[in-house]
Amino acid sequence: MTKTRTDCLNLDANDRLAPLRAHFMTESVDAQSLIYLDGNSLGLLPRATPARVQEVVQGEWGRDLIRSWNENGWMTLSQRIGDKIAPLLGVGPGEVLVADSTSVNLYKVLSAALALTKADAPRRRLVVADRTDFPSDLYIADSLCRERGFELVLADDQEILSRLDDRVAVLQLTQVNYRTGRRHRMSEITRAAHRAGALVVWDLSHSAGAFPVKLKGEGAAEDVADFAVGCGYKYLNGGPGAPAFVWANPAHTQRMDREHTGQPLSGWLGHEAPFEFEPDYRPGTSMSRFLCGTPPILSLAALECGVDVFQAALALGGLNALCEKSIALTGLFIDLVESRCAGQGLTLVTPRRSDERGSQVCFSHESGAFAIMKAVIERNVIGDFRAPNILRFGFAPLYTRFVDVWDAVDRLETVLRTSEWRDARFSLREAVT
Amino acid sequence: MTKTRTDCLNLDANDRLAPLRAHFMTESVDAQSLIYLDGNSLGLLPRATPARVQEVVQGEWGRDLIRSWNENGWMTLSQRIGDKIAPLLGVGPGEVLVADSTSVNLYKVLSAALALTKADAPRRRLVVADRTDFPSDLYIADSLCRERGFELVLADDQEILSRLDDRVAVLQLTQVNYRTGRRHRMSEITRAAHRAGALVVWDLSHSAGAFPVKLKGEGAAEDVADFAVGCGYKYLNGGPGAPAFVWANPAHTQRMDREHTGQPLSGWLGHEAPFEFEPDYRPGTSMSRFLCGTPPILSLAALECGVDVFQAALALGGLNALCEKSIALTGLFIDLVESRCAGQGLTLVTPRRSDERGSQVCFSHESGAFAIMKAVIERNVIGDFRAPNILRFGFAPLYTRFVDVWDAVDRLETVLRTSEWRDARFSLREAVT
Repeated sequence: MTKTRTDCLNLDANDRLAPLRAHFMTESVDAQSLIYLDGNSLGLLPRATPARVQEVVQGEWGRDLIRSWNENGWMTLSQRIGDKIAPLLGVGPGEVLVADSTSVNLYKVLSAALALTKADAPRRRLVVADRTDFPSDLYIADSLCRERGFELVLADDQEILSRLDDRVAVLQLTQVNYRTGRRHRMSEITRAAHRAGALVVWDLSHSAGAFPVKLKGEGAAEDVADFAVGCGYKYLNGGPGAPAFVWANPAHTQRMDREHTGQPLSGWLGHEAPFEFEPDYRPGTSMSRFLCGTPPILSLAALECGVDVFQAALALGGLNALCEKSIALTGLFIDLVESRCAGQGLTLVTPRRSDERGSQVCFSHESGAFAIMKAVIERNVIGDFRAPNILRFGFAPLYTRFVDVWDAVDRLETVLRTSEWRDARFSLREAVT
Repeated sequence: MTKTRTDCLNLDANDRLAPLRAHFMTESVDAQSLIYLDGNSLGLLPRATPARVQEVVQGEWGRDLIRSWNENGWMTLSQRIGDKIAPLLGVGPGEVLVADSTSVNLYKVLSAALALTKADAPRRRLVVADRTDFPSDLYIADSLCRERGFELVLADDQEILSRLDDRVAVLQLTQVNYRTGRRHRMSEITRAAHRAGALVVWDLSHSAGAFPVKLKGEGAAEDVADFAVGCGYKYLNGGPGAPAFVWANPAHTQRMDREHTGQPLSGWLGHEAPFEFEPDYRPGTSMSRFLCGTPPILSLAALECGVDVFQAALALGGLNALCEKSIALTGLFIDLVESRCAGQGLTLVTPRRSDERGSQVCFSHESGAFAIMKAVIERNVIGDFRAPNILRFGFAPLYTRFVDVWDAVDRLETVLRTSEWRDARFSLREAVT
C-alpha cells in the first residue's frame, strides 16, 4: 500500500531521531515552506553555528587576537575536529585532520600513495578510477598520473573489481556516486584491491555523516583502507565550502615517520616544528604531515558545530539508527515517486537495494530533467540537477522528516501531472550547483 | 629631539588617515589597554565583519541555502574579492583571485613557472630563493624542485642579484622579509631577473595593504612580474587563516589559454565549465585555472570586509598616504627605541632606510628576545617573537596611532629598565604564532 501523509506523520512521531531536527535552524526553512532535499550538496545550518561563529569573530579574533592561536586552541583545531569526525569513519583519534579542500587533500594522499607504490612495487603503473565519479577527483588523479609517470584508467563502476591486477598501483574510488547515489561495498573492494597488491584511496564526500563508514572493515589488516578524503559541507553540515577531512592508515603514517617522508604540499604547518622556522622541511609525525598552510579558522569553527550535532545523534541511537532512517527515507521516496508519478517518464537511477545506495535518490528524465527540477524548485522543493538528465534528491537523516518526503513527492507529482515544467522559463539553462 | 607623548598625540590629530581606525572594532582592544603591534601577523577585526559574517551564516546559508551559489554570488566571490585586491597590487580586474592558502597558491604558480621554463628554456634548472624567507615558501619550492627535476638554490638576500644567470629558471622572493622587515625593490629585481632570462614569483604576504605594490613596475614589459601570491590575514585584515590571493601576468595566462595548460591542482572550479561535469580536465581561461576546490565562503566573506576598508583608505589619500604613514610610524618607533632603550642590548635588524623596509620593525636581543617579548605582552603590548632572537613589531597603517607607538616604547623601556623580563616565568618557551 502506498503510504499516506498521515502514515508519514506517524512515522515521524515514532522516529527516535526526530529530536535531532531541533539542532538545526529550520525556522527560516519552514517559513518559506521549503522542503530541503539538498543536504548532500550543502547541509542545513546547525542551531549552534551562528553564536559560535560570532564568538570566534568578536571574541577570539576581535578581542583575543593573535593570542587565540594558543589560548583559544586555533593551533589544534584541525586535529580537534578531525578527532570528532573519526568515529563517523570507524577510525581512531589522531587519524583524521581537517584542512584545505577535498581536491587538495586528494592531491596529498594520492601523491603519498603513488610514492609508496614507487618504493614497493615500481612496476605497478596504473591508477584505476570510476569514470562516473565526481570529475574533480578524476582531474586530480589525471594531473598526478601525468606528473609521476602513472597511467589513469577510467573504468565503468561494474568493472572496477575486474580491473584489479598486478599492474595497478592505486584504486581511487568515491564510495557513493554523486550522480547516481550508488554505494560501493567498502570492505569487499578494499580487500580485493589489497589482494591484488593495490592501495585504495576513498572519497567519502557523500558517505560521512549519512551512514557509518568503516575504513577499517572488521579489523583484519587487509580490510583496512589506505587513504581517505571527504567533504565538510554536505552531511557534516559545516557550511558553504567548509574545509575537508583527510585520513591515512596509521601503518602508512608510521612508515612515513620511519622514512621521514611527507607529501608535496609541504606547507609550514606540516613541518615537525613549524615555529622553529627552519629552512629545511622535516615532515611532522603521523597525520600532521598532511597539513599545509594556515587553515581558515572561521570556516573551521562552523564545521565543528556541524560535526558536533553527531554527538547528539550518537546519544539517540548512533550511526546505525541514522543509516536505518536514511534507508527508510530513500525507500519511501522511491515507492512514492514510482507509484504516484508512474508514466511520467522518470526512471530510477539509484540502486533499489538499500545496501547499494547512499542517502540520495536520483531519477533520470530523458528530455526534461533540468526544466522539471526548476519547476520543482519553484514549488519550494530543493533538489538539484546533474547533467545531462538527472534529478537528484538528498535525504540527510539528521533533519529530514518522513512528511517532507511525502510533501516533496506531492509537489513533484503536481509539476509532472500538470506539465507545468514545459513552461519555457523553466528550460532556461544556467549554472546550478 | 626625541618626540614626546604630546607630540605623538598631535601627529594623530593631524593625521588625515586617522579616521580609518574607526573602521575597526577597537573598543575591546582599548578596553584591555592593548597596543596591538601584530597586524602583520593577524590584522584587527574590521567593524563591518561581524554583521556581514552573520548575514552570510544566517541569511545566505541558513535561509537561502544552496541557491546562494548563484543568487548571492558565492560562485564569483573569489573573483570579486580578487578585483578589490588588484588595485593594491597595481594590477587590473580579472587578474587576481582569492583561494586556498598562500602555500597552496605558491605551489600552483611555481608549478606554472617551471612548466613555462621547461617549454622555453629547458636548460635552465635552478630556482633561486632567499634562504631567510618564510620557510613555508622554501618548503614548497624544495618540494616542487625535487618533483620537477630542478635544483633549489638558497641565497643570502644580498647576493640575490648576483645569482641571476643563464642557469636560473625562476627567482622566488618575498618582497618584505617576515623576520627582518627588509623590503626588496620589486621593479629593480624583476627587471634584473628578466634580463637574465628568469621568471619571478613574488610573495606579497607582508606587502599587500601596507604600501602600494607595483607588480607591473612602470609598465615596460620587462618590469612586469610573472606570478605573485600573498596572505589575506595580515594587512588585509581578513581574519585568522583567511584565504590567500594569487596573481599571474596576463601574458602568461593568455599563453596558457592558447596552449590549454593549467596547473597541477586541477580541481573542478579551475575547469572551463565546472557544471558540465566532464571527465576530462579543460583548464578555465585566464586566472580561473588557478582555482581548485570549493572555497570556504564564511572565511571569504570576512576577507571581503577586510579588503573593503581599503576603499575608505583610497578615498582619504590613497595607498601612498598609507605608505607615508607606515614610514612615519616605523621611523618613530626606531627613533624612540634607540633613544629611550639605549644600552639595553637591542640591535635594530630592520633597515634604517625607509624605502628598504616594510611596515614592521625588528630588534634582536642576544639572550632575552623571547623573555622580553613575553614580558612586553604581559604589559599589553602585542608584538611577536621570531626565532632565534628577534622581537618583531608590526605597524599596520590603517589603525595604528602615533601615540600607540609612544606608549609601546614606554612599556618596552619599563620592561628593559627594570629587568622584569628576567623573571623566570617569562623565559618559559612555548609555541608563539
